Amino acid sequence: MNFEARLAADKALIEEALKGAFRGRTPRADIYDAMNYSLLAGGKRVRPILTLETCRMCGGDPAAALPFACAVEMIHTYSLIHDDLPCMDDDDLRRGRPTNHKVYGEATAVLAGDGLLTAAFEIALEGRGDLAPERVVEALDCLAHAAGAGGMVGGQALDMAGEGRSLTQSDVEELQRFKTGALISAAAEMGCIVAGGDEEDRQAVRRYAGKLGLAFQIRDDMLDVTGDEADLGKPTGSDARGEKTTFVTLKGLTGCAQMVEKLTAEAEEALSRFEHPEFLTALAHELVDRTN
Amino acid sequence: MNFEARLAADKALIEEALKGAFRGRTPRADIYDAMNYSLLAGGKRVRPILTLETCRMCGGDPAAALPFACAVEMIHTYSLIHDDLPCMDDDDLRRGRPTNHKVYGEATAVLAGDGLLTAAFEIALEGRGDLAPERVVEALDCLAHAAGAGGMVGGQALDMAGEGRSLTQSDVEELQRFKTGALISAAAEMGCIVAGGDEEDRQAVRRYAGKLGLAFQIRDDMLDVTGDEADLGKPTGSDARGEKTTFVTLKGLTGCAQMVEKLTAEAEEALSRFEHPEFLTALAHELVDRTN
Repeated sequence: MNFEARLAADKALIEEALKGAFRGRTPRADIYDAMNYSLLAGGKRVRPILTLETCRMCGGDPAAALPFACAVEMIHTYSLIHDDLPCMDDDDLRRGRPTNHKVYGEATAVLAGDGLLTAAFEIALEGRGDLAPERVVEALDCLAHAAGAGGMVGGQALDMAGEGRSLTQSDVEELQRFKTGALISAAAEMGCIVAGGDEEDRQAVRRYAGKLGLAFQIRDDMLDVTGDEADLGKPTGSDARGEKTTFVTLKGLTGCAQMVEKLTAEAEEALSRFEHPEFLTALAHELVDRTN
Repeated sequence: MNFEARLAADKALIEEALKGAFRGRTPRADIYDAMNYSLLAGGKRVRPILTLETCRMCGGDPAAALPFACAVEMIHTYSLIHDDLPCMDDDDLRRGRPTNHKVYGEATAVLAGDGLLTAAFEIALEGRGDLAPERVVEALDCLAHAAGAGGMVGGQALDMAGEGRSLTQSDVEELQRFKTGALISAAAEMGCIVAGGDEEDRQAVRRYAGKLGLAFQIRDDMLDVTGDEADLGKPTGSDARGEKTTFVTLKGLTGCAQMVEKLTAEAEEALSRFEHPEFLTALAHELVDRTN
């Protein structure tokens, strides 16, 4: 199967699993509607694809990684809902549609986020099947620490503390590592854990994901300046309006393009110990060339 | 050790563990301060005490249950922070002190809640020690489902949907079962799981906790009418002002007192299969006689 076909197959698998995640659940309140509204709004599904494909690359069955893939996407989605709240970034549009609180109100949006964060653990635990409990525990340990105050939540706190202040490149890199890097890294590492990869495999996968995550963020900052609003599904120029220090304000567009190129090469190199890194290598390149 | 002494010993153990939970963590933002502000604000610690003591009653070592006890208290605390937000119940006081968002602002309060919810899983996973991974997985499965949209989060959504509407007794009981009962039940059941209790043990413990949780809520509704603000650390009469249907508006104070008595007797009876139910029986009585 070539890269495009496998990417499409992975996405279809993930969409189907996410669609079914809350089918038939109670209580009869609109909370699942609000959760699904954001969870099923499309998106690139980069994190769950990483989980499935690192599992495959490390010799595991991607089907066993699917619940963990869904979990990481739920955590990503909850973070978007909470970040968009009026008391946070106060955004009206996300993936081309009104943000969660614009449709369901703030209270429900807070709860939908809480529900998705919790559902990540529910879904991974109830979908564990025959997977060895040690691996379930290891994978969730990895996920929880990446998502928490020492990872993504801490990154969002740092981000808010930094708004309007002038940051150095190392501040911005630290921020990225916490705010988006940690979860991307966990997404990849969980696939490796599910496959039974050893510590060296995990380290290599973390290194790959670290490089990819940083390149991804730099590309995001570039698209906020050069991108097309219709392609992105959100307004551009938001960083500049918020007076945020980004990789573009620090390094310029040309400097950013060079960083992205270097990081992508390093990501590729990190996978050299694996027999079949082709898909994940192609994915790194794909993310760098994207326009949305 | 008599009831009072053991209760004090359990509380001391829990306070100490919660105090140390986030020691030395990074990144350097005020997020851990905000998390600790609410987590270490006192409170009865009913849920973690249940976890420790059901573990002991089922023949396990309460020390092994301590990380799970901390986890359930973190989830309880996060739910209070989010429930107090302006877009939810908009409360200014909690346990006699300004609510989290009053001190740290709304954005940080949202993140502190998110951080505590995630930390529940972090703390349980990193504190698992030699506990069999199957039991870790079972206990977290129990916790996640109780906390999520099919449990506590769903209950809060139901509660908000019901505000200003007239509810029947069965509506109010359903609401309680989701909003507070599910987590209390999970707190108790996790202790039993850690101890290696069988399905009948778990069922008995759930039954006990279900009765206790309902009695606890009825008592809460009574205290909102009859309680002393200084004792409670929060304003009374809030239910009446919010035009909420409560057990008191449905059954009156006398009817409530009778329900509480009956439920406490049933909770006691649910533990008849265990050799040493004395502490948990006494706890049920203690919670019913409380004035805060």
